Amino acid sequence: MSELAELRQRLARIEDERAIERLIASYGPLVDSGSVEATAALWSQEGTYDVEDWQMRGRADVAAMVGSDAHQGLIGRGCLHFHGPAVVTVDGDDAVAVCESVLVVRHESRNVVARTGANHFRLRRIADRWQITARVTRTLDGDAGARELLTTGIEGR
Amino acid sequence: MSELAELRQRLARIEDERAIERLIASYGPLVDSGSVEATAALWSQEGTYDVEDWQMRGRADVAAMVGSDAHQGLIGRGCLHFHGPAVVTVDGDDAVAVCESVLVVRHESRNVVARTGANHFRLRRIADRWQITARVTRTLDGDAGARELLTTGIEGR
Amino acid sequence: MSELAELRQRLARIEDERAIERLIASYGPLVDSGSVEATAALWSQEGTYDVEDWQMRGRADVAAMVGSDAHQGLIGRGCLHFHGPAVVTVDGDDAVAVCESVLVVRHESRNVVARTGANHFRLRRIADRWQITARVTRTLDGDAGARELLTTGIEGR
Repeated sequence: MSELAELRQRLARIEDERAIERLIASYGPLVDSGSVEATAALWSQEGTYDVEDWQMRGRADVAAMVGSDAHQGLIGRGCLHFHGPAVVTVDGDDAVAVCESVLVVRHESRNVVARTGANHFRLRRIADRWQITARVTRTLDGDAGARELLTTGIEGR
Repeated sequence: MSELAELRQRLARIEDERAIERLIASYGPLVDSGSVEATAALWSQEGTYDVEDWQMRGRADVAAMVGSDAHQGLIGRGCLHFHGPAVVTVDGDDAVAVCESVLVVRHESRNVVARTGANHFRLRRIADRWQITARVTRTLDGDAGARELLTTGIEGR
Repeated sequence: MSELAELRQRLARIEDERAIERLIASYGPLVDSGSVEATAALWSQEGTYDVEDWQMRGRADVAAMVGSDAHQGLIGRGCLHFHGPAVVTVDGDDAVAVCESVLVVRHESRNVVARTGANHFRLRRIADRWQITARVTRTLDGDAGARELLTTGIEGR
Protein backbone atom coordinates (compact mmCIF):
# COMPACT_ATOMS: atom_id res chain seq x y z
CA MET A 1 0.00 0.00 0.00
CA SER A 2 1.29 3.49 -0.74
CA GLU A 3 2.02 5.76 2.18
CA LEU A 4 -0.88 7.99 1.21
CA ALA A 5 -3.31 5.08 0.93
CA GLU A 6 -2.27 3.89 4.37
CA LEU A 7 -2.90 7.34 5.90
CA ARG A 8 -6.28 7.45 4.18
CA GLN A 9 -7.21 4.10 5.68
CA ARG A 10 -6.19 5.09 9.20
CA LEU A 11 -8.11 8.35 8.89
CA ALA A 12 -11.22 6.57 7.59
CA ARG A 13 -11.13 4.22 10.56
CA ILE A 14 -11.09 7.14 13.00
CA GLU A 15 -13.93 8.81 11.10
CA ASP A 16 -15.98 5.62 11.32
CA GLU A 17 -15.39 5.23 15.02
CA ARG A 18 -16.16 8.89 15.64
CA ALA A 19 -19.38 8.75 13.62
CA ILE A 20 -20.55 5.91 15.85
CA GLU A 21 -19.44 7.66 19.03
CA ARG A 22 -21.40 10.70 17.91
CA LEU A 23 -24.49 8.64 17.11
CA ILE A 24 -24.44 7.09 20.58
CA ALA A 25 -23.73 10.44 22.28
CA SER A 26 -26.74 11.85 20.43
CA TYR A 27 -29.15 9.28 21.83
CA GLY A 28 -29.52 10.86 25.28
CA PRO A 29 -30.12 14.44 24.09
CA LEU A 30 -32.58 13.20 21.45
CA VAL A 31 -34.59 10.92 23.68
CA ASP A 32 -34.62 13.40 26.58
CA SER A 33 -35.90 16.16 24.32
CA GLY A 34 -38.58 13.84 22.94
CA SER A 35 -37.30 14.03 19.35
CA VAL A 36 -39.39 11.21 17.92
CA GLU A 37 -38.14 11.08 14.33
CA ALA A 38 -34.51 11.90 14.99
CA THR A 39 -34.25 9.22 17.69
CA ALA A 40 -35.86 6.62 15.41
CA ALA A 41 -33.48 7.58 12.59
CA LEU A 42 -30.53 6.35 14.66
CA TRP A 43 -31.82 2.83 13.97
CA SER A 44 -31.87 0.98 10.67
CA GLN A 45 -35.22 0.19 9.03
CA GLU A 46 -35.40 -3.18 10.76
CA GLY A 47 -33.19 -2.28 13.72
CA THR A 48 -34.13 -3.65 17.12
CA TYR A 49 -34.05 -2.16 20.62
CA ASP A 50 -34.45 -4.55 23.50
CA VAL A 51 -34.62 -2.73 26.82
CA GLU A 52 -35.77 -4.79 29.77
CA ASP A 53 -39.45 -5.49 29.19
CA TRP A 54 -39.72 -3.44 26.00
CA GLN A 55 -38.99 -5.09 22.62
CA MET A 56 -38.88 -2.80 19.59
CA ARG A 57 -38.31 -3.68 15.94
CA GLY A 58 -37.99 -0.98 13.28
CA ARG A 59 -38.04 2.78 13.43
CA ALA A 60 -41.79 2.96 13.95
CA ASP A 61 -41.45 1.02 17.19
CA VAL A 62 -38.65 3.29 18.44
CA ALA A 63 -40.68 6.35 17.46
CA ALA A 64 -43.69 4.92 19.31
CA MET A 65 -41.58 4.41 22.44
CA VAL A 66 -40.37 8.04 22.40
CA GLY A 67 -43.91 9.28 21.80
CA SER A 68 -45.49 6.97 24.37
CA ASP A 69 -47.27 8.23 27.47
CA ALA A 70 -44.69 6.44 29.60
CA HIS A 71 -41.74 8.22 27.96
CA GLN A 72 -43.47 11.58 27.60
CA GLY A 73 -44.39 11.34 31.28
CA LEU A 74 -40.70 10.91 32.14
CA ILE A 75 -39.80 13.94 30.01
CA GLY A 76 -42.57 16.01 31.60
CA ARG A 77 -41.19 15.32 35.07
CA GLY A 78 -37.60 15.66 33.84
CA CYS A 79 -35.33 12.80 32.88
CA LEU A 80 -31.75 12.31 31.79
CA HIS A 81 -30.61 9.27 29.84
CA PHE A 82 -26.96 9.88 30.65
CA HIS A 83 -24.55 7.77 28.57
CA GLY A 84 -20.82 7.45 29.09
CA PRO A 85 -18.18 7.38 26.33
CA ALA A 86 -18.68 4.44 23.95
CA VAL A 87 -15.99 1.88 23.14
CA VAL A 88 -16.33 1.17 19.42
CA THR A 89 -14.94 -1.68 17.31
CA VAL A 90 -15.34 -1.38 13.55
CA ASP A 91 -14.97 -4.28 11.12
CA GLY A 92 -15.62 -3.09 7.58
CA ASP A 93 -19.27 -2.11 7.35
CA ASP A 94 -20.14 -3.65 10.71
CA ALA A 95 -19.43 -2.40 14.19
CA VAL A 96 -20.02 -3.17 17.83
CA ALA A 97 -20.12 -0.56 20.58
CA VAL A 98 -20.65 -0.62 24.30
CA CYS A 99 -21.23 1.99 26.99
CA GLU A 100 -22.65 2.35 30.43
CA SER A 101 -25.48 4.68 31.37
CA VAL A 102 -27.68 5.96 34.16
CA LEU A 103 -31.27 7.11 33.97
CA VAL A 104 -31.93 10.02 36.29
CA VAL A 105 -35.59 10.90 36.88
CA ARG A 106 -36.98 13.84 38.77
CA HIS A 107 -39.31 12.71 41.51
CA GLU A 108 -40.93 15.16 43.95
CA SER A 109 -38.18 17.74 43.32
CA ARG A 110 -35.45 15.19 43.94
CA ASN A 111 -33.37 13.47 41.25
CA VAL A 112 -33.40 9.71 41.52
CA VAL A 113 -31.05 7.30 39.74
CA ALA A 114 -33.90 5.15 38.50
CA ARG A 115 -31.78 2.71 36.55
CA THR A 116 -28.23 1.84 35.62
CA GLY A 117 -27.57 0.43 32.16
CA ALA A 118 -25.22 -1.83 30.24
CA ASN A 119 -25.69 -0.96 26.56
CA HIS A 120 -24.57 -3.15 23.67
CA PHE A 121 -24.93 -1.88 20.10
CA ARG A 122 -24.58 -3.60 16.76
CA LEU A 123 -24.29 -1.14 13.88
CA ARG A 124 -24.06 -1.38 10.14
CA ARG A 125 -23.06 1.11 7.48
CA ILE A 126 -26.17 1.39 5.28
CA ALA A 127 -26.48 3.94 2.49
CA ASP A 128 -23.19 5.46 3.72
CA ARG A 129 -24.49 6.14 7.21
CA TRP A 130 -23.94 4.14 10.41
CA GLN A 131 -27.22 2.84 11.78
CA ILE A 132 -28.08 0.73 14.83
CA THR A 133 -29.21 -2.74 13.80
CA ALA A 134 -29.55 -4.10 17.33
CA ARG A 135 -29.35 -2.46 20.74
CA VAL A 136 -29.73 -4.33 24.00
CA THR A 137 -29.87 -2.49 27.32
CA ARG A 138 -29.97 -4.24 30.70
CA THR A 139 -29.94 -3.04 34.28
CA LEU A 140 -26.75 -3.79 36.19
CA ASP A 141 -28.39 -5.56 39.12
CA GLY A 142 -26.09 -8.55 39.39
CA ASP A 143 -27.67 -10.28 36.40
CA ALA A 144 -25.18 -12.29 34.35
CA GLY A 145 -26.77 -11.20 31.07
CA ALA A 146 -26.07 -7.53 31.76
CA ARG A 147 -22.45 -8.29 32.59
CA GLU A 148 -22.11 -10.37 29.43
CA LEU A 149 -23.20 -7.35 27.34
CA LEU A 150 -20.24 -5.42 28.75
CA THR A 151 -17.61 -8.09 28.15
CA THR A 152 -18.75 -8.96 24.63
CA GLY A 153 -19.04 -5.28 23.80
CA ILE A 154 -15.48 -4.54 24.88
CA GLU A 155 -14.26 -7.52 22.87
CA GLY A 156 -16.10 -6.19 19.81
CA ARG A 157 -18.39 -9.24 19.60
CA MET B 1 -8.55 19.34 -4.52
CA SER B 2 -5.46 17.14 -4.41
CA GLU B 3 -5.64 13.90 -2.49
CA LEU B 4 -3.24 15.26 0.09
CA ALA B 5 -5.20 18.48 0.53
CA GLU B 6 -8.37 16.47 1.07
CA LEU B 7 -6.73 14.34 3.76
CA ARG B 8 -5.44 17.47 5.43
CA GLN B 9 -8.92 18.95 5.49
CA ARG B 10 -10.49 15.83 7.00
CA LEU B 11 -7.75 15.65 9.62
CA ALA B 12 -8.18 19.33 10.51
CA ARG B 13 -11.89 18.79 11.01
CA ILE B 14 -11.25 15.97 13.49
CA GLU B 15 -8.67 18.10 15.30
CA ASP B 16 -11.18 20.93 15.60
CA GLU B 17 -13.90 18.67 16.94
CA ARG B 18 -11.49 17.03 19.36
CA ALA B 19 -10.19 20.37 20.64
CA ILE B 20 -13.77 21.33 21.49
CA GLU B 21 -14.53 17.95 23.06
CA ARG B 22 -11.42 18.39 25.20
CA LEU B 23 -12.39 21.92 26.20
CA ILE B 24 -15.82 20.73 27.35
CA ALA B 25 -14.39 17.66 29.11
CA SER B 26 -12.03 20.00 30.97
CA TYR B 27 -14.83 22.11 32.41
CA GLY B 28 -15.85 19.66 35.15
CA PRO B 29 -12.34 18.94 36.46
CA LEU B 30 -11.49 22.67 36.39
CA VAL B 31 -14.63 23.92 38.11
CA ASP B 32 -14.61 21.09 40.69
CA SER B 33 -11.01 21.84 41.61
CA GLY B 34 -11.80 25.54 41.90
CA SER B 35 -9.38 26.58 39.17
CA VAL B 36 -10.53 30.16 38.79
CA GLU B 37 -8.34 31.40 35.94
CA ALA B 38 -8.27 28.19 33.91
CA THR B 39 -12.05 27.85 34.01
CA ALA B 40 -12.51 31.46 32.95
CA ALA B 41 -10.02 30.98 30.11
CA LEU B 42 -12.38 28.46 28.47
CA TRP B 43 -14.58 31.46 27.59
CA SER B 44 -13.87 34.23 25.13
CA GLN B 45 -13.31 37.78 26.43
CA GLU B 46 -16.99 38.60 26.05
CA GLY B 47 -18.28 35.04 26.34
CA THR B 48 -21.51 34.46 28.25
CA TYR B 49 -22.63 31.73 30.65
CA ASP B 50 -26.29 31.58 31.46
CA VAL B 51 -27.05 28.95 34.06
CA GLU B 52 -30.50 29.10 35.61
CA ASP B 53 -30.56 32.25 37.75
CA TRP B 54 -26.92 33.20 37.14
CA GLN B 55 -26.01 35.38 34.14
CA MET B 56 -22.31 35.85 33.43
CA ARG B 57 -20.62 37.93 30.75
CA GLY B 58 -16.87 37.84 30.24
CA ARG B 59 -14.09 35.92 31.92
CA ALA B 60 -14.18 38.07 35.04
CA ASP B 61 -17.77 37.00 35.68
CA VAL B 62 -16.93 33.31 35.21
CA ALA B 63 -13.92 33.71 37.49
CA ALA B 64 -16.12 35.40 40.08
CA MET B 65 -18.59 32.49 39.95
CA VAL B 66 -15.83 29.92 40.53
CA GLY B 67 -14.40 32.00 43.35
CA SER B 68 -17.78 32.79 44.92
CA ASP B 69 -18.77 31.64 48.39
CA ALA B 70 -21.58 29.60 46.83
CA HIS B 71 -19.26 27.66 44.54
CA GLN B 72 -16.40 27.36 47.05
CA GLY B 73 -18.95 26.05 49.53
CA LEU B 74 -19.92 23.31 47.07
CA ILE B 75 -16.27 22.40 46.55
CA GLY B 76 -15.65 22.35 50.28
CA ARG B 77 -18.45 19.84 50.80
CA GLY B 78 -17.50 17.96 47.64
CA CYS B 79 -19.12 18.37 44.25
CA LEU B 80 -18.89 16.82 40.82
CA HIS B 81 -19.97 18.65 37.68
CA PHE B 82 -20.14 15.46 35.66
CA HIS B 83 -20.46 16.03 31.90
CA GLY B 84 -21.15 13.42 29.26
CA PRO B 85 -19.49 13.21 25.82
CA ALA B 86 -20.19 16.32 23.74
CA VAL B 87 -21.68 16.25 20.24
CA VAL B 88 -19.80 18.90 18.26
CA THR B 89 -20.65 20.54 14.92
CA VAL B 90 -17.97 22.74 13.38
CA ASP B 91 -18.63 25.27 10.62
CA GLY B 92 -15.40 27.08 9.74
CA ASP B 93 -14.40 29.17 12.75
CA ASP B 94 -17.73 28.65 14.50
CA ALA B 95 -19.04 25.63 16.32
CA VAL B 96 -21.98 24.39 18.34
CA ALA B 97 -21.76 21.64 20.93
CA VAL B 98 -24.21 19.95 23.26
CA CYS B 99 -23.94 17.58 26.18
CA GLU B 100 -25.87 16.42 29.20
CA SER B 101 -24.61 16.64 32.76
CA VAL B 102 -25.38 15.94 36.38
CA LEU B 103 -24.28 17.87 39.43
CA VAL B 104 -23.55 15.59 42.37
CA VAL B 105 -23.14 17.29 45.74
CA ARG B 106 -22.08 15.70 49.00
CA HIS B 107 -24.65 16.30 51.69
CA GLU B 108 -24.33 14.83 55.18
CA SER B 109 -22.02 12.05 53.91
CA ARG B 110 -24.45 11.13 51.14
CA ASN B 111 -24.07 12.10 47.47
CA VAL B 112 -27.12 13.82 46.06
CA VAL B 113 -27.87 14.44 42.38
CA ALA B 114 -28.62 18.09 42.95
CA ARG B 115 -29.27 18.95 39.33
CA THR B 116 -29.45 17.53 35.84
CA GLY B 117 -28.31 19.71 32.95
CA ALA B 118 -28.85 20.32 29.26
CA ASN B 119 -25.79 22.24 28.05
CA HIS B 120 -25.62 24.19 24.78
CA PHE B 121 -22.33 25.78 23.72
CA ARG B 122 -21.48 28.25 20.99
CA LEU B 123 -17.77 28.43 20.30
CA ARG B 124 -15.51 30.45 18.07
CA ARG B 125 -11.93 30.04 16.97
CA ILE B 126 -10.22 33.19 18.24
CA ALA B 127 -6.46 33.68 18.06
CA ASP B 128 -6.18 30.07 16.90
CA ARG B 129 -7.89 28.66 19.98
CA TRP B 130 -11.50 27.50 20.42
CA GLN B 131 -13.29 29.57 23.04
CA ILE B 132 -16.85 29.50 24.39
CA THR B 133 -18.79 32.56 23.24
CA ALA B 134 -22.10 31.49 24.77
CA ARG B 135 -23.06 28.65 27.09
CA VAL B 136 -26.59 28.03 28.29
CA THR B 137 -27.33 25.38 30.91
CA ARG B 138 -30.84 24.43 32.01
CA THR B 139 -32.25 21.85 34.36
CA LEU B 140 -34.14 19.02 32.70
CA ASP B 141 -37.34 19.37 34.70
CA GLY B 142 -39.87 19.16 31.89
CA ASP B 143 -39.19 22.73 30.78
CA ALA B 144 -39.47 23.21 27.00
CA GLY B 145 -36.46 25.54 26.93
CA ALA B 146 -34.13 22.88 28.29
CA ARG B 147 -35.36 20.36 25.73
CA GLU B 148 -34.90 22.92 22.95
CA LEU B 149 -31.22 23.31 23.92
CA LEU B 150 -30.75 19.60 23.28
CA THR B 151 -32.47 19.50 19.89
CA THR B 152 -30.82 22.62 18.53
CA GLY B 153 -27.47 21.45 19.86
CA ILE B 154 -27.71 18.09 18.08
CA GLU B 155 -28.72 19.89 14.88
CA GLY B 156 -25.67 22.17 15.21
CA ARG B 157 -27.79 25.32 15.54
CA MET C 1 9.32 18.01 7.51
CA SER C 2 7.48 16.94 4.36
CA GLU C 3 3.78 17.60 4.15
CA LEU C 4 3.08 13.88 4.29
CA ALA C 5 5.30 13.36 7.32
CA GLU C 6 3.51 16.17 9.11
CA LEU C 7 0.09 14.62 8.41
CA ARG C 8 1.37 11.28 9.64
CA GLN C 9 2.55 12.86 12.88
CA ARG C 10 -0.77 14.61 13.51
CA LEU C 11 -2.67 11.41 12.80
CA ALA C 12 -0.43 9.37 15.11
CA ARG C 13 -1.07 11.85 17.90
CA ILE C 14 -4.83 11.44 17.55
CA GLU C 15 -4.45 7.66 17.46
CA ASP C 16 -2.42 7.76 20.66
CA GLU C 17 -4.93 9.96 22.45
CA ARG C 18 -7.82 7.82 21.24
CA ALA C 19 -6.14 4.58 22.33
CA ILE C 20 -5.85 6.02 25.84
CA GLU C 21 -9.42 7.34 25.81
CA ARG C 22 -10.57 3.86 24.81
CA LEU C 23 -8.50 2.21 27.52
CA ILE C 24 -10.06 4.46 30.18
CA ALA C 25 -13.57 4.05 28.75
CA SER C 26 -13.06 0.28 28.95
CA TYR C 27 -12.32 0.29 32.66
CA GLY C 28 -15.93 0.68 33.84
CA PRO C 29 -17.40 -2.05 31.61
CA LEU C 30 -14.55 -4.41 32.50
CA VAL C 31 -14.63 -3.89 36.25
CA ASP C 32 -18.44 -3.93 36.41
CA SER C 33 -18.57 -7.22 34.53
CA GLY C 34 -15.92 -8.68 36.82
CA SER C 35 -13.42 -9.30 34.02
CA VAL C 36 -10.42 -10.10 36.17
CA GLU C 37 -7.70 -10.58 33.56
CA ALA C 38 -8.84 -7.92 31.10
CA THR C 39 -9.05 -5.28 33.84
CA ALA C 40 -5.59 -6.18 35.12
CA ALA C 41 -4.19 -6.03 31.57
CA LEU C 42 -4.97 -2.29 31.44
CA TRP C 43 -2.06 -1.83 33.86
CA SER C 44 1.62 -2.32 33.19
CA GLN C 45 3.45 -5.17 34.92
CA GLU C 46 4.44 -2.90 37.80
CA GLY C 47 1.58 -0.43 37.45
CA THR C 48 -0.02 0.95 40.59
CA TYR C 49 -3.61 1.72 41.54
CA ASP C 50 -4.15 3.81 44.63
CA VAL C 51 -7.81 4.17 45.47
CA GLU C 52 -8.61 5.53 48.89
CA ASP C 53 -7.61 2.84 51.36
CA TRP C 54 -6.58 0.27 48.73
CA GLN C 55 -3.00 0.23 47.40
CA MET C 56 -2.28 -2.08 44.48
CA ARG C 57 1.00 -2.75 42.68
CA GLY C 58 1.15 -4.93 39.61
CA ARG C 59 -1.49 -6.79 37.61
CA ALA C 60 -1.87 -9.53 40.20
CA ASP C 61 -2.99 -6.94 42.77
CA VAL C 62 -5.50 -5.41 40.35
CA ALA C 63 -6.79 -8.87 39.47
CA ALA C 64 -7.11 -9.69 43.17
CA MET C 65 -9.17 -6.53 43.71
CA VAL C 66 -11.58 -7.40 40.91
CA GLY C 67 -11.88 -10.96 42.19
CA SER C 68 -12.18 -9.96 45.85
CA ASP C 69 -15.29 -10.66 47.93
CA ALA C 70 -15.74 -6.91 48.36
CA HIS C 71 -15.80 -6.21 44.63
CA GLN C 72 -17.74 -9.37 43.70
CA GLY C 73 -20.28 -8.40 46.33
CA LEU C 74 -20.73 -5.01 44.64
CA ILE C 75 -21.21 -6.71 41.26
CA GLY C 76 -23.69 -9.18 42.73
CA ARG C 77 -25.85 -6.34 44.05
CA GLY C 78 -25.27 -4.29 40.90
CA CYS C 79 -22.71 -1.54 40.50
CA LEU C 80 -21.66 0.98 37.89
CA HIS C 81 -18.20 2.54 37.81
CA PHE C 82 -19.33 5.35 35.53
CA HIS C 83 -16.44 7.37 34.05
CA GLY C 84 -16.71 10.58 32.08
CA PRO C 85 -14.68 11.48 28.97
CA ALA C 86 -10.95 11.57 29.70
CA VAL C 87 -8.70 14.54 28.95
CA VAL C 88 -5.44 13.07 27.62
CA THR C 89 -2.02 14.67 27.20
CA VAL C 90 0.58 12.64 25.32
CA ASP C 91 4.33 13.35 25.41
CA GLY C 92 6.18 10.80 23.31
CA ASP C 93 5.80 7.42 25.00
CA ASP C 94 4.35 8.92 28.18
CA ALA C 95 0.92 10.30 28.85
CA VAL C 96 -1.26 11.76 31.57
CA ALA C 97 -5.03 11.54 31.62
CA VAL C 98 -7.76 12.72 33.96
CA CYS C 99 -11.47 12.10 34.29
CA GLU C 100 -14.24 12.28 36.81
CA SER C 101 -16.43 9.36 37.84
CA VAL C 102 -19.28 8.23 40.01
CA LEU C 103 -19.81 4.84 41.60
CA VAL C 104 -23.48 3.85 41.64
CA VAL C 105 -24.39 0.87 43.81
CA ARG C 106 -27.73 -0.86 44.08
CA HIS C 107 -28.94 -0.92 47.64
CA GLU C 108 -32.32 -2.36 48.62
CA SER C 109 -33.68 -1.81 45.08
CA ARG C 110 -32.52 1.79 45.05
CA ASN C 111 -29.43 3.11 43.23
CA VAL C 112 -27.10 5.07 45.48
CA VAL C 113 -24.25 7.32 44.37
CA ALA C 114 -21.80 5.69 46.75
CA ARG C 115 -18.77 7.70 45.71
CA THR C 116 -17.60 10.45 43.40
CA GLY C 117 -14.11 10.21 41.96
CA ALA C 118 -11.24 12.31 40.68
CA ASN C 119 -9.07 9.97 38.58
CA HIS C 120 -5.48 10.72 37.57
CA PHE C 121 -3.68 8.32 35.23
CA ARG C 122 -0.05 8.04 34.19
CA LEU C 123 0.44 5.85 31.15
CA ARG C 124 3.36 4.57 29.15
CA ARG C 125 3.64 2.98 25.75
CA ILE C 126 5.18 -0.42 26.45
CA ALA C 127 5.56 -3.09 23.77
CA ASP C 128 3.57 -0.84 21.45
CA ARG C 129 0.53 -0.70 23.74
CA TRP C 130 -0.52 2.04 26.17
CA GLN C 131 -0.59 0.78 29.72
CA ILE C 132 -1.42 2.43 33.05
CA THR C 133 1.69 2.86 35.15
CA ALA C 134 -0.01 4.75 37.99
CA ARG C 135 -3.65 5.51 38.74
CA VAL C 136 -4.80 7.52 41.72
CA THR C 137 -8.50 7.86 42.53
CA ARG C 138 -9.83 10.07 45.31
CA THR C 139 -13.28 11.01 46.52
CA LEU C 140 -14.29 14.60 45.89
CA ASP C 141 -15.24 15.46 49.45
CA GLY C 142 -13.51 18.81 49.76
CA ASP C 143 -10.10 17.22 50.18
CA ALA C 144 -7.27 19.26 48.62
CA GLY C 145 -5.53 16.12 47.31
CA ALA C 146 -8.52 15.13 45.18
CA ARG C 147 -8.74 18.60 43.69
CA GLU C 148 -5.00 18.57 42.97
CA LEU C 149 -5.44 15.39 40.91
CA LEU C 150 -7.86 17.26 38.69
CA THR C 151 -5.70 20.34 38.14
CA THR C 152 -2.48 18.43 37.51
CA GLY C 153 -4.33 16.04 35.22
CA ILE C 154 -5.72 18.85 33.07
CA GLU C 155 -2.26 20.41 32.89
CA GLY C 156 -0.83 17.06 31.76
CA ARG C 157 1.43 16.75 34.79
